[in-house]
Amino acid sequence: MNKIAETLRTFEFFENIGDEELNFIAERLDEIEFPAGSTIIKEGDDADSMFILIDGEIDVLRTTPFGDEYLCATLLAEFHCTFGEMAMIDKDKRSATIKAKTNCKCLEVKAKDFNGFCKIYPAAGVELLKIIAINMARNLRNENENLRLVYQALIEEIEQI
Amino acid sequence: MNKIAETLRTFEFFENIGDEELNFIAERLDEIEFPAGSTIIKEGDDADSMFILIDGEIDVLRTTPFGDEYLCATLLAEFHCTFGEMAMIDKDKRSATIKAKTNCKCLEVKAKDFNGFCKIYPAAGVELLKIIAINMARNLRNENENLRLVYQALIEEIEQI
Repeated sequence: MNKIAETLRTFEFFENIGDEELNFIAERLDEIEFPAGSTIIKEGDDADSMFILIDGEIDVLRTTPFGDEYLCATLLAEFHCTFGEMAMIDKDKRSATIKAKTNCKCLEVKAKDFNGFCKIYPAAGVELLKIIAINMARNLRNENENLRLVYQALIEEIEQI
Repeated sequence: MNKIAETLRTFEFFENIGDEELNFIAERLDEIEFPAGSTIIKEGDDADSMFILIDGEIDVLRTTPFGDEYLCATLLAEFHCTFGEMAMIDKDKRSATIKAKTNCKCLEVKAKDFNGFCKIYPAAGVELLKIIAINMARNLRNENENLRLVYQALIEEIEQI
């Protein structure tokens, strides 16, 4: 098992994936370094890849309707996070900006490699897609709850007038 | 090909699935009839299945923080819609209520049958999971946009005071 495969083995994302499949993925990934303060992905950009954060801290930012960026979350490599899955799956635009808060190392998974992997190892592809779908469902439930809270605040604000 | 498989063949959801796989699914589905006005699924309920609407019209409803139901969408069988995928994937609670607007016929896909299908036909499982993930990504992008709009309305309301 090469060094990248050993790193991936520690990720919950790959917990149901065998060593052969993990090596196949690992051989197709490049380690990319992002210096602190640099932009890893930009909201609105076209994209077809996801990232695996293997070192450092990242900020997840969104833009308000007035053009201001606000911080949604800070993610640490020790929590074994992945990001950008949505654009890899639907090949639509990035839904958030990700900036390196510290010097970061990431692995980029391109859609063509992911789809190639699913063709060769479909059972492992099912496992990865289930995790991606579960993560998306969690984000969707969070967004529903955020929408409910902001909606409630809006109604209270209107009634106060 | 049995009658249910022939119906499923018209759904975009199953367009990348072969006849053998489609028959396998079709044999495990029961047609359920819901009279107009009845509740098909209820927001907050535990669940582990998705539905395929094959006849009739349904209303998608959510509850406000004040307990009022509001209409999010009306879906027609002719648009070949599926619903409830999220709870089938993450086995968490229903995120919306679905009511039969007219007399409806649905096919219910249980998580255990879906997972069994993915084990026997993983390549087809990959195709179905990709469509589920793409649908979820679309819903997530819509929710992001809704949140942005309600947030904007809230800021404008606050500034007006």
